Amino acid sequence: MSAAAKSKRSAGRRGAGRETAESLAQRQREISVSEFFLKNRHLLGFDSPRKALLTAVKEAVDNSLDACEEAGIVPEISVDIEQLDRDRFRVTVTDNGPGIVRSQIPKIFGKLLYGSKFHRLRMSRGQQGIGISAAGMYGQLTTGTATRIWSRTGPRNRAHLLEVHLDTRKNRPMIVADREVEWRPEFPAAGKKRGGGTRTASRGTRVSIELEGSYVRGRLSVDEYIKQCAVVNPHLMLHYRVRLRRPGGDNDGEAEGEWTSFQRVSEVLPKPTVEIKPHPHGVELGLLMQILKDSSARTLRAALVQDFSRVSDRAALEICERAGLNPRARPALIAQRDSEALYRAISETRLMRPPTDCLSPIGEEEIVAGLRKEIRADFYTAVTRRPTVYRGNPFQVEAGLAYARPGENAELGAEDSVRVMRFANRVPLLYMSGACAMTRAVTGVKWKTYGLTQPRNAVPVGPMVILLHIASVWVPFTSESKEAVAHYPEILRELTFALQECGRRLAVYLRRRRRQAEAARKRSHIVTYIPHLALGLKEILSLSDRQEAAVVRGLEKLLDRTHLEI
Amino acid sequence: MSAAAKSKRSAGRRGAGRETAESLAQRQREISVSEFFLKNRHLLGFDSPRKALLTAVKEAVDNSLDACEEAGIVPEISVDIEQLDRDRFRVTVTDNGPGIVRSQIPKIFGKLLYGSKFHRLRMSRGQQGIGISAAGMYGQLTTGTATRIWSRTGPRNRAHLLEVHLDTRKNRPMIVADREVEWRPEFPAAGKKRGGGTRTASRGTRVSIELEGSYVRGRLSVDEYIKQCAVVNPHLMLHYRVRLRRPGGDNDGEAEGEWTSFQRVSEVLPKPTVEIKPHPHGVELGLLMQILKDSSARTLRAALVQDFSRVSDRAALEICERAGLNPRARPALIAQRDSEALYRAISETRLMRPPTDCLSPIGEEEIVAGLRKEIRADFYTAVTRRPTVYRGNPFQVEAGLAYARPGENAELGAEDSVRVMRFANRVPLLYMSGACAMTRAVTGVKWKTYGLTQPRNAVPVGPMVILLHIASVWVPFTSESKEAVAHYPEILRELTFALQECGRRLAVYLRRRRRQAEAARKRSHIVTYIPHLALGLKEILSLSDRQEAAVVRGLEKLLDRTHLEI
Repeated sequence: MSAAAKSKRSAGRRGAGRETAESLAQRQREISVSEFFLKNRHLLGFDSPRKALLTAVKEAVDNSLDACEEAGIVPEISVDIEQLDRDRFRVTVTDNGPGIVRSQIPKIFGKLLYGSKFHRLRMSRGQQGIGISAAGMYGQLTTGTATRIWSRTGPRNRAHLLEVHLDTRKNRPMIVADREVEWRPEFPAAGKKRGGGTRTASRGTRVSIELEGSYVRGRLSVDEYIKQCAVVNPHLMLHYRVRLRRPGGDNDGEAEGEWTSFQRVSEVLPKPTVEIKPHPHGVELGLLMQILKDSSARTLRAALVQDFSRVSDRAALEICERAGLNPRARPALIAQRDSEALYRAISETRLMRPPTDCLSPIGEEEIVAGLRKEIRADFYTAVTRRPTVYRGNPFQVEAGLAYARPGENAELGAEDSVRVMRFANRVPLLYMSGACAMTRAVTGVKWKTYGLTQPRNAVPVGPMVILLHIASVWVPFTSESKEAVAHYPEILRELTFALQECGRRLAVYLRRRRRQAEAARKRSHIVTYIPHLALGLKEILSLSDRQEAAVVRGLEKLLDRTHLEI
Repeated sequence: MSAAAKSKRSAGRRGAGRETAESLAQRQREISVSEFFLKNRHLLGFDSPRKALLTAVKEAVDNSLDACEEAGIVPEISVDIEQLDRDRFRVTVTDNGPGIVRSQIPKIFGKLLYGSKFHRLRMSRGQQGIGISAAGMYGQLTTGTATRIWSRTGPRNRAHLLEVHLDTRKNRPMIVADREVEWRPEFPAAGKKRGGGTRTASRGTRVSIELEGSYVRGRLSVDEYIKQCAVVNPHLMLHYRVRLRRPGGDNDGEAEGEWTSFQRVSEVLPKPTVEIKPHPHGVELGLLMQILKDSSARTLRAALVQDFSRVSDRAALEICERAGLNPRARPALIAQRDSEALYRAISETRLMRPPTDCLSPIGEEEIVAGLRKEIRADFYTAVTRRPTVYRGNPFQVEAGLAYARPGENAELGAEDSVRVMRFANRVPLLYMSGACAMTRAVTGVKWKTYGLTQPRNAVPVGPMVILLHIASVWVPFTSESKEAVAHYPEILRELTFALQECGRRLAVYLRRRRRQAEAARKRSHIVTYIPHLALGLKEILSLSDRQEAAVVRGLEKLLDRTHLEI
């Protein structure tokens, strides 16, 4: 055994000895949030190469869409996936968004928990400030490469190209390269699928990440994500390309994938959402204390009006009186001494529900249009529920249905489980359906009432697609990877109501279809007898052949007009 | 409308306007990890009052057990739950552990992501440095109170009492009170359940948290957690008390709960575990680069030996040669330029599996003893698999079974689903069983082969308890709340093998029991005829009554001796 190996045996394995409070204290250390998530990267959606590829695409596209919509730009985005080696891919996402100011680029892409969306109550796709930097961190971990970002903020500004590493020990960006470049976002010319030219935009951002991944088609694939993205974002022009290496595995040239373009069907952006203040009924005691302490208002009454939503001047006074507190007291003082009385008084005071202009639902028409575009079926319907509240957070639920006639759509088997498409703030959710409140709501509805078969505690069976969407200022996901919505009772209830309404409409359609089928059956029965009837009439009334033919035509016409009533 | 209300309307709702790169940049902000988890507290197990109470108890007990075992102290712990108001509880956990050095107390209880267990590869209950400070943060959020900690590190040291808040904006502790006190950990005198005195220890820690909670009995309760804790920690003396307010809800005096003590059945601590280095085959490219960069070794060869486990001097040389690298090169230089070649060479080099003295399984005998103690049944068995590896991390799986005769144990119905008890590093897991690899393994085994009924894709049916334990230096939980184990194929395979072995033994037992039942049936049949036989013999052989009685006795005895072979 070498000296090094020996020293390793003695020094390398601590912990078998007996610890004391002092020896334990010496080993206490701070853990950086990036070290934490690097070790726990399955929490962020990077647990398998296949899912990692999807998650990286998803985080980049979500960011692009948010940026475009906030800047009022009708979005155009390209997603380019290139296989570099057996399990190595480069993901490049380009948008025509507002671009990113140079000084912010390193932090946005090279630091976890950094962003503009966490500290506000407003609906957006991103909400945590983790996604895209986590994708870069995963790329760095598995391939050692830096995230590359091109960005241009306007036609007269020059573009910046940065390469950014994430220092996981300190959770901060390390800039590997930084230079000004001639760059504009480029997109394949729309409409021309083959060899067409390209178009450029005057500003935008491109991010490129190399990572260990795996490209697999199917229900949990990037393809599916892209397709569902197009369904719920009718205003999005989306280009998608996957270039795989030749199956032989040798590096002798690349197999060229081609661009697929999902055209936009609407030039109108979703209604812009506004930021709201927290609603008093959703605020816990500890948070109430914090808000009062931080308040810039000089009196308790003003703080209540200013720092919360839906507290009118009169309501503020009522709260103060009920709590037995001086409305002119300093908020910070109340925070220290009388917050419990205030908290109780707030919970006993009736207040308007939170404002809902912070939400931007897809809308019933758009859902039906989106479903029509991507799913061939016979019956479509959609329901947008009115906004409501869980734990003080406004949210709104939507449901859509597409039902195909038997044999109409090969992808929807009459004997298969219904396909459920889940969306949160317009983002498709593919993984972890079993843990999601939306799946729970679907299995909880009694679909037999509406004419479908349904195994116990399961998704119903039939040639159908169900679309569910929850829009909220804060979607309560069950994990950082944002794949499933937590089971808040208020959310489950709204989902159930929306599904039941869709179900009732489906039942009407199915009954009508059954009646029509029945009528058609009867009609074909009668049609058989028309010639015999005409012949009988001809003999009784001594009609000519021409008259006989006229009788047949007339009877058939009569049947046509009345067949719905038969 | 008042002036305040007006200004609110204009200033309070930003975001409806059009953003530019510049305006977006102004709103980018760092998010502290405690702000993140405060808003996402369901990730930490604080999503409902009921679960919050359990999580707080669990985090405190886990910490106490880890501390005792690391210090080589046979643990004694008391858990005291007191209802202060309808939905307000105080949780107090006291241990006889090594105590905590005064200077470390604020950070351990008032800062997320701080601890001694994250940065090492060694089996322990805690691994993230989040749990107990998150419980305190939740208490602070819901009741505004500080976490109180008493600690004494030895008989001659004075005790400290600290009250600590967590500043969520900065994720750092705020000390509310700090003084030296006369304090020793106190425990109810063992054995005396009523009015008995107390005993004290010379050192230890007590932590007390007030929080919004809800006490509910049942499968997901603190009661169940405590009971399961006793099952897998035979060396633990555990005292438990719940004091609820009178059902009337008035504050006129407290209903006194009484201490329940779970005696230890063993004075022997689990085998102490040692810390290991990462195994090269479980290290990604990016991490390899980081380790080389941080290495204190002066040559690549030495770094490989010193910073990894299972790399002998010879193996290090082999790796260098295969990669075409100079064994004497500076590690940091290799990290920059040749890490990919090195990475490939490592993956192609055969190495011994990681050492497994970092793991401390419960053991087959202890599992059976634990099950016997808490579950009345007829047949017990347990399997401890040999250690193996997922993603470079050593882990080890254990399974136990307890099968009751029909009617033997009222809690185990013959028609009910089998009860599955899940443990990770000796910690009971109660919630999220549906998402756990252990549940998946149970449903995946073909229990019909072993004589049980089993609905498709479900847990088998029968009067049985299954215990599963995974021990690892890093248990891959599906969320920070540590309630379910992720579906790594290696882990699923080991679980399945362990269950199958238990299943085979169960099948032997069930066959034997069936044979015995059959034999008993036959025997009772024959017994009926013995007097007739004796009477016949008596007549044929002209025996006396005494001889006839002797024949009956003799035949019965004969039957007794041979009944197993019938």
